[in-house]
Amino acid sequence: MEQKLIFTNEVGDAIDVLVADFGNPDVVLISDTGVAQAVLPVLVNDSKAVASAKRIIVGEGDDNKNLDSLASIWQQLSDCEATRHTVVINLGGGMIGDMGGFAAATFKRGMRCINVPTTLLAAVDASVGGKTAINFNGVKNQIGTFAEPVASIISTIFFNTLPQQQILSGYAEMLKHALLESDEMLSKLLAYSPVYPVFDSEAMLPLLRESVAVKARIAGADLTEQGIRKALNLGHTAGHAFESMAMARKSPVPHGYAVAWGLVVELVLSHMLVGFPSDMLHKFAAYIRTNYGAFAINCKDYPALLAYMRQDKKNTSPDSINFTLLPSVGNPEIDRTATPDQIKAALDIYCDLIGC
Amino acid sequence: MEQKLIFTNEVGDAIDVLVADFGNPDVVLISDTGVAQAVLPVLVNDSKAVASAKRIIVGEGDDNKNLDSLASIWQQLSDCEATRHTVVINLGGGMIGDMGGFAAATFKRGMRCINVPTTLLAAVDASVGGKTAINFNGVKNQIGTFAEPVASIISTIFFNTLPQQQILSGYAEMLKHALLESDEMLSKLLAYSPVYPVFDSEAMLPLLRESVAVKARIAGADLTEQGIRKALNLGHTAGHAFESMAMARKSPVPHGYAVAWGLVVELVLSHMLVGFPSDMLHKFAAYIRTNYGAFAINCKDYPALLAYMRQDKKNTSPDSINFTLLPSVGNPEIDRTATPDQIKAALDIYCDLIGC
Repeated sequence: MEQKLIFTNEVGDAIDVLVADFGNPDVVLISDTGVAQAVLPVLVNDSKAVASAKRIIVGEGDDNKNLDSLASIWQQLSDCEATRHTVVINLGGGMIGDMGGFAAATFKRGMRCINVPTTLLAAVDASVGGKTAINFNGVKNQIGTFAEPVASIISTIFFNTLPQQQILSGYAEMLKHALLESDEMLSKLLAYSPVYPVFDSEAMLPLLRESVAVKARIAGADLTEQGIRKALNLGHTAGHAFESMAMARKSPVPHGYAVAWGLVVELVLSHMLVGFPSDMLHKFAAYIRTNYGAFAINCKDYPALLAYMRQDKKNTSPDSINFTLLPSVGNPEIDRTATPDQIKAALDIYCDLIGC
Repeated sequence: MEQKLIFTNEVGDAIDVLVADFGNPDVVLISDTGVAQAVLPVLVNDSKAVASAKRIIVGEGDDNKNLDSLASIWQQLSDCEATRHTVVINLGGGMIGDMGGFAAATFKRGMRCINVPTTLLAAVDASVGGKTAINFNGVKNQIGTFAEPVASIISTIFFNTLPQQQILSGYAEMLKHALLESDEMLSKLLAYSPVYPVFDSEAMLPLLRESVAVKARIAGADLTEQGIRKALNLGHTAGHAFESMAMARKSPVPHGYAVAWGLVVELVLSHMLVGFPSDMLHKFAAYIRTNYGAFAINCKDYPALLAYMRQDKKNTSPDSINFTLLPSVGNPEIDRTATPDQIKAALDIYCDLIGC
């Protein structure tokens, strides 16, 4: 089944057109308490399908992306006699897309979903590519499946009320997509600040459209992550290590910020090992420093950071650590490895560039 | 991914060859208490991979095919640090194939499975086609997904100790496959009794091989049941109604017996509505009566049977009931409907043929 990507700020109309195309089946809306308060009242006015949908509302936040919430969604789908013909609308951030998507993919072996992301991070990352999941036993996304929504409706109208930090968090994934795509796309993003002086939802929509197309192309070529899709992990091996360290320091950082700093580390490694151009590395690092600040580390942190990197799902050997590296913008190489000494050298240079 | 079907009575060797082909990853064996006692000790002698596998043993019987057992499997997969590279062996009947398959399909978004069915019904039906599931909220197979094992190892060595009833239950699905395939295959099965004078596991293996090929071909052409796969529901609309009625009478019948009687009803309907040949109908009904006996009904039962048939997942309108019908052996027509009066007439003829 081919996933439709619809870019529009007329979200209510887009939902109603899709539901009518499906022959006006029953609709169940899955959302969380925060979104139900902030966004749902507007959509109820703009969409007949949303107004008449049965609602399943779970607690907000990643802590609720668990088996209890999932079982409750399954139970409520049963209670409202949902069938294979019922359509699910997942309205929310990545947590709702992931968990609502998993519930729908598994109820009666699969219902159709429409994803309506309400955060930039969900729009650029989770709304395409078909990864669904819940957390389990303390591990993020431990249980899930690959299942694409029939459509994602991607808009920027919900982002005006998001905190700056959340916008920047999503923008880091857009920067990653640009690194995987072209100098031209990257230059456009580096010339722009998504939060200064105010968030401009109309200017963001075309940038977002280009960025999602990159993810859709790469994920679509390798839905179950056997090969090229690993390129989307660029920045994430080091980024997850920063995220885990921040958590251990009891001062967590947003996922996208960790990815931004991780991208700097992995571009340094790319420069050292596969010749990523020095001028672009400096330009990129300067942008990250200006917009995201620094994640401060020193050489005493290196053993812990290396230990976090070793835990990454992608590793197959304990002696070296797996990365996606970039000889030049637009040319990712997956399944590259670096030794602990090379990584330590890269972290030294990261500190110089980012100003630890 | 293409599912391998391996027909052999050297099951231990076949498992070891597959696991070696995968590069000798960690192996987790999922089974139930009954199979762990009856079958596992033999396989441990015959297979190094099984001998060294971590074991996850759940309670036996369909009552244990539930969310609690599933969560326990996920937990044990976590505890033994299973990864995407770990291979799961599902050793058991349909219940283990369904639930172990679902657990493996969703743990870390999908591990590889080898299915080793230990009942005829599981071998002929559940081991191919990629349907996985658990029961939920009192509904059979309410939660699940479509996910094929990388291989099914199909043998007849485990069937010698099965009760006759279980052999006949699986044989009914083989009869269904023959009806969907060819006069030749059907004649071969109708000339044979799987339980008389004793179960002959060597004679059964080639028959089973032909039968599984029918299922693999039809399910493979339509993995997510959008079209032709519905042909595999032949006999099941009426069969499920008999099964539900038997349950309501507090005297449950084996699934395959209900399918056998359901096939007679649906061949009568096929004769009435699309011209299924009368001589073949009589021959088939006589075989069922001899081997499966009669499910006795009278006209007072018809309203309840019709009500059960209306609950079938395949129906789209309350006025008519959906069937797969057969103008002739080997030529199923899906999405046919019959009116309540036509169904009542067919039930009258069923009673005459089967001797209610």
